[in-house]
Amino acid sequence: MQEFQSWLVIPNNHDFSIYNIPFGVFYINNNLKSARCGAALGDYIIDLSCLYQFGYLNDIKNLSKEIFEKNKLNYFLSLGNETCNSVRKRIQSLFSEKNIELKNHPEHLEKILVPAASAQMLLPIEVKDYVDFYSSLDHASNVGKMFRDEKNPLLPNWKHIPIGYHGRSSSIVVSGTSFKRPQGQLCLPDSSTPTFDFSKQMDFELEMAFITNKKTEMGQTISPDNASDAIFGLTLFNDWSARDIQRWEYVPLGPFLGKSFASSMSPWVVSLDALSPFALAAPSKDVPELDYLRCSRLGHYDIHLEIYLQSEKMREPFLIAKTNYKHMYWNLFQQLAHMTSNGSPVSVGDVYASGTISGPTPDSYGSLLEICWKGTKPLSLPDGSTRNFLQNGDTVIFKGFAQKGNIRVGFGNLSGTILS
Amino acid sequence: MQEFQSWLVIPNNHDFSIYNIPFGVFYINNNLKSARCGAALGDYIIDLSCLYQFGYLNDIKNLSKEIFEKNKLNYFLSLGNETCNSVRKRIQSLFSEKNIELKNHPEHLEKILVPAASAQMLLPIEVKDYVDFYSSLDHASNVGKMFRDEKNPLLPNWKHIPIGYHGRSSSIVVSGTSFKRPQGQLCLPDSSTPTFDFSKQMDFELEMAFITNKKTEMGQTISPDNASDAIFGLTLFNDWSARDIQRWEYVPLGPFLGKSFASSMSPWVVSLDALSPFALAAPSKDVPELDYLRCSRLGHYDIHLEIYLQSEKMREPFLIAKTNYKHMYWNLFQQLAHMTSNGSPVSVGDVYASGTISGPTPDSYGSLLEICWKGTKPLSLPDGSTRNFLQNGDTVIFKGFAQKGNIRVGFGNLSGTILS
Repeated sequence: MQEFQSWLVIPNNHDFSIYNIPFGVFYINNNLKSARCGAALGDYIIDLSCLYQFGYLNDIKNLSKEIFEKNKLNYFLSLGNETCNSVRKRIQSLFSEKNIELKNHPEHLEKILVPAASAQMLLPIEVKDYVDFYSSLDHASNVGKMFRDEKNPLLPNWKHIPIGYHGRSSSIVVSGTSFKRPQGQLCLPDSSTPTFDFSKQMDFELEMAFITNKKTEMGQTISPDNASDAIFGLTLFNDWSARDIQRWEYVPLGPFLGKSFASSMSPWVVSLDALSPFALAAPSKDVPELDYLRCSRLGHYDIHLEIYLQSEKMREPFLIAKTNYKHMYWNLFQQLAHMTSNGSPVSVGDVYASGTISGPTPDSYGSLLEICWKGTKPLSLPDGSTRNFLQNGDTVIFKGFAQKGNIRVGFGNLSGTILS
Repeated sequence: MQEFQSWLVIPNNHDFSIYNIPFGVFYINNNLKSARCGAALGDYIIDLSCLYQFGYLNDIKNLSKEIFEKNKLNYFLSLGNETCNSVRKRIQSLFSEKNIELKNHPEHLEKILVPAASAQMLLPIEVKDYVDFYSSLDHASNVGKMFRDEKNPLLPNWKHIPIGYHGRSSSIVVSGTSFKRPQGQLCLPDSSTPTFDFSKQMDFELEMAFITNKKTEMGQTISPDNASDAIFGLTLFNDWSARDIQRWEYVPLGPFLGKSFASSMSPWVVSLDALSPFALAAPSKDVPELDYLRCSRLGHYDIHLEIYLQSEKMREPFLIAKTNYKHMYWNLFQQLAHMTSNGSPVSVGDVYASGTISGPTPDSYGSLLEICWKGTKPLSLPDGSTRNFLQNGDTVIFKGFAQKGNIRVGFGNLSGTILS
């Protein structure tokens, strides 16, 4: 990929470089009614409604002022990847070094560029169906080692099928949203009688989520090789988990209230287009895939992921683990192909989370459950405290970015705080 | 409850009697754009938009022409039970024997009354989150006896917690919708290698579903005694299941593609208000309920339920089982209280299905899996064929009604056909 510069001052190694141009929904002056669609560039948000009104997107079909004035990206994304990527490329062009179209119109720029620090972000999409997969081999193996069989940790279906389940759409919130520690039925391992109390085993799960931009009819399927037409892009995702609630409730129908109190999503959706330079081949597999899951295009992405924890007493976040989205066993195209293999309809604004992303080593695990290995290896924090699970006042921050030389495409921060 | 008559000719024992007045969404002349809200009365649909325009609903606050011109009930239901029930009672009054307000205006009646036979029905609501519970003791016991332990069929959590899981909203369709037999990963019990093929174990599940009409904030809970304020009413529900897909995929995160190909809902939502004369106390329980699940109001309903099957060769549907919604172990108020006990937000238009409703005897089981006891007791049909699971061309029809003397409140038919 060729390097190019912007005439706009963008700090080095900024997640929202000229190579990125992610989309989101912002508002200013605490006025929720002003919410509209934007694109991030450095420390600015590009007001897409303004950009359109001043005529800078005139050559792109199907756009309208109204589409950018919505408080969700669903309408924009429904125009399809060709249109959305044209807007992205047009913005890259307008802000590239040698282009003076917009640069020479300070009276436009003043309205188009909103300082990110003065804006607040909303959930970028209205979430339709939400699915959470379980597609990291190391994560599934760790869970199996802890709770089933050290030597044979994977269930027989795991390497054949991208295991997943439906989660609760209404509890997906944007980065920065705090939430109360949930209550629920808890049952100590040596008891058969539950109590109703606050969860004592609050955890995070580091995930990424992809967002669909197509509506399919019942009975229609999507193959792995066609799936990229139905996916706009990715966000960071925190599938907060109350382990004690989950353990008691999940047999036989899966996780329910141990997850549905809150899930957090980063506000900027990074397009597959922007991530394409970082695509990788799949790791080799010892179990052959069924035909409907075979993917001949690159479907893994080299995205560095970091987990930070900050207690109320700490002055800054503390890095507790690093991993990478490339560790996925099943890629996002296979996940969508599997989900639609029975003809289940996809909507614009579905969210498909990856499942916890763990790497092969303990410093690359994606949950406290794994990092502290079921409470046997407490995590020490710089404030002198230790953790097996999260405490009230703890803030968890995920960061993610892809980088090659000076070319960086990042996701910004995803943060959330547990309140008492 | 006092009996009263309507001046409109309504056949005896009609599900949509003057005591009922369920709400739904209909369109005429194959014109989807004409879709709007209606209420059922006998063999007619009352066009609520017309009724409003002619001024017959003038004394009820917060209504508007636009609310009734939507192609979903969500906006109407969001006005709350007081308003929706006022509309229902106003319709009962307008059509009751001694009221001549509307009767003496044939020019209005001509527009307000649409023959049901000339209309087509849509899904009554835009479905937000969809949850499926597992709250019938006999069903859970039957499944446990077949697949776990004949003598100890229930898992330790079952009598403490209303087990449930999230399902796929996008695949919920209205009665009358046919769908193709789904494909999926199947793995024979004695094999560890799956194939991808059409499900060979298609089944129905007889359920009822309640629909919420309130939006709650994250962290807010709803107690069993307050839950009726957040529920408008009930429909019949068929949680179609591909048993072979489900069996291979469901460990450890629950059902996914074995369910998400299609779920069917009846088009008319019957209000809790209309069902109140049929409310019952809960059956006695041998395990005490935790406080947050205690319900001091009547939360069970005496609703007769019938399952019919019709193959392509049969001229009419054949009754294969009868059961009753009163057999629920956890009632709908306890289900909603449990779902919100961790602070999970409720939306207007959430669907909460009961789980398969089975009674204590084999002629009252709610699925073919149970009726045929895992394939050991094939069902004989009048066309000479037998069934362990559904075949292509089979139509499954559910009926449901509550009745006391001449007072009948019914749900109409819920039907669906499996195509090849």
